[in-house]
Amino acid sequence: MTGPRYTKLTAGLPATVPFVGPESQERSLGQPFRARLGANESVFGPSPKAIEAMAKAAAQTWMYGDPENHDLRHALAAHEGVTFENIIVGEGIDGLLGYLVRLVTEGPKDAVVTSDGAYPTFNYHVAGYGGGLHKVPYSGDHEDPDALLAKARKVRAKLVYLANPDNPMGSWHSRETIERMASAMPDGCLLVLDEAYAQFLPATKVPQIDPNNPSVIRFRTFSKAYGMAGARVGYGIGHPDLIDAFNKVRNHFGMCRISQAGALAALEDTKYLSEVIDKVKDATTRIGTIAAGNGLTALPTAANFVAIDCGGDEAFDKSVLDGLIDQGVFVRMHFVKPQNRCIRISAGKIPDLDIFAEALPRALSQARAQL
Amino acid sequence: MTGPRYTKLTAGLPATVPFVGPESQERSLGQPFRARLGANESVFGPSPKAIEAMAKAAAQTWMYGDPENHDLRHALAAHEGVTFENIIVGEGIDGLLGYLVRLVTEGPKDAVVTSDGAYPTFNYHVAGYGGGLHKVPYSGDHEDPDALLAKARKVRAKLVYLANPDNPMGSWHSRETIERMASAMPDGCLLVLDEAYAQFLPATKVPQIDPNNPSVIRFRTFSKAYGMAGARVGYGIGHPDLIDAFNKVRNHFGMCRISQAGALAALEDTKYLSEVIDKVKDATTRIGTIAAGNGLTALPTAANFVAIDCGGDEAFDKSVLDGLIDQGVFVRMHFVKPQNRCIRISAGKIPDLDIFAEALPRALSQARAQL
Repeated sequence: MTGPRYTKLTAGLPATVPFVGPESQERSLGQPFRARLGANESVFGPSPKAIEAMAKAAAQTWMYGDPENHDLRHALAAHEGVTFENIIVGEGIDGLLGYLVRLVTEGPKDAVVTSDGAYPTFNYHVAGYGGGLHKVPYSGDHEDPDALLAKARKVRAKLVYLANPDNPMGSWHSRETIERMASAMPDGCLLVLDEAYAQFLPATKVPQIDPNNPSVIRFRTFSKAYGMAGARVGYGIGHPDLIDAFNKVRNHFGMCRISQAGALAALEDTKYLSEVIDKVKDATTRIGTIAAGNGLTALPTAANFVAIDCGGDEAFDKSVLDGLIDQGVFVRMHFVKPQNRCIRISAGKIPDLDIFAEALPRALSQARAQL
Repeated sequence: MTGPRYTKLTAGLPATVPFVGPESQERSLGQPFRARLGANESVFGPSPKAIEAMAKAAAQTWMYGDPENHDLRHALAAHEGVTFENIIVGEGIDGLLGYLVRLVTEGPKDAVVTSDGAYPTFNYHVAGYGGGLHKVPYSGDHEDPDALLAKARKVRAKLVYLANPDNPMGSWHSRETIERMASAMPDGCLLVLDEAYAQFLPATKVPQIDPNNPSVIRFRTFSKAYGMAGARVGYGIGHPDLIDAFNKVRNHFGMCRISQAGALAALEDTKYLSEVIDKVKDATTRIGTIAAGNGLTALPTAANFVAIDCGGDEAFDKSVLDGLIDQGVFVRMHFVKPQNRCIRISAGKIPDLDIFAEALPRALSQARAQL
């Protein structure tokens, strides 16, 4: 007896994971992390009202979630000032990115463009559907809209991915830059605007884009500012035809009922959201101070994390990272040159950042001793 | 500006849903159902210990779920008497079926076989990945292992789907029949054994299959007997190579943290599970009595629902169904001839079944008046 006959595509894929989870690292280390600052989760947690709604929904979890996400879509439409038909809800941005890539990609001739060092889960999906992945370098610490557009034209791309604010650098573009990019998309090319961190931007800096622009889809999430990463709720804003296309491929009964209830309650608690945003601002400021106190440069950030330039090369960066991990501080480093001179620290509570502040000098001195 | 350029495959797919959700029907009706007996959910709910674990985990939902599902996989491996490497956890059986179909299917030459009238979400995934879907008829009220195998050989199928117990008929095969089928799979053909309802079978009737048999994957779920449909936790048992292949395509961070916690607690509460199974038995017995009291035949069932033969054709069946829906009783009917002479009633609590008992005679008399 032989095993299944995989497709040529899937047979050639690695059994990989875009990110190694902190739990896996804890199991390797044999102890829990003292500070969990590596996945840009919100340590400030969900709104107490969302927690209450989820706890209350636990007893109702014998029922499948509403496959239309009717109530949440209506609430999101009102929140975003768009129509119900402009909103798709899915299992986190990761899930929605997977569906989107699947809709347009079936082989290497289906070109997509991203930045070298940007969000790896997008690349994971593109590889998983056999698409042709084209990368352009960052311009300094920013994704480069002009280079992305030029490459898109050259390879006749179907998708162009850009995150604003950017992960993993924390950099951002002006409203006008993104709006210009949105209106300059080549025919038949879709701008995939990942706005996972958009709530951390001041409202005046968030791009205004016609929700019915057929060349743009924006993705938002409850995983970051709303503190609900483990609930898997993301949403997209786009042209109704594109939104409807997700219904061709999505897992219609894929949303958890508890998560739907939690997201609805979280969305209503605008007061809590602004408190979190303030706390995140304090935390990222303090991370900058800690970096400076160690002679390092914290990059400007518009997100809930800070890229700290450790001032060396990839090997040095890895050494600092390992030193932090060994001391029970979960952080991550950047993926590719030249960003991989940086480590990425998520906004933490005061005790989390105390631990980081204590651990960083030792990690640095150990790394320097290895030079 | 034009919209995205979809793949030929996805452009040709309908924006469809395998099942219309009860919430959508409630919105159409303008009122909530009085009895929710249409989706084979467990009205008895999750174990109180699972509810407690989920409520407690709500505050922790700022963290992504463990992408390895480490603790749950270990607990499931112990529960099933297999190794950690034999277990894949995913977003319900629906999610896992999607991944599996994707692993082996990319065009119409990739043949898969199922029974005409069996679980439509499997067919949805096959269509969604462009596979060649071949159907064989039920034999009476049973899926037909010999016909499935013969068709699989003829079309050189990559997958053969069979549910035991069967949904939507509630019928089941002997342990020996399924074991024989598992050992008779053609080379390179995988038996997809959907055991969503296996917990309702007496342990002695559950097939014993070598977990390392490369020709079989079994799917189980927390959606039915465990009463956690809205938490989206399914798992597969299979050869480690096949289990590992899921890592090539799955949404690694797709599991909800609350659901992981709930499933772990539910799995431990074996006492509650047997109480539910007893209650389900009482409920399905009573559904049979109600059917008989109305001159109808309830088919034997090994699941948490009963197919009631309404004694007419599809039009009559639809008429009875509509009469029940109009009276606030959510049930479903079967999809294709000859099963579509039946309606499907999920096990309910006593008040749910009181409502059904009250509504059925009127639905029948209205349907008969339309003959």
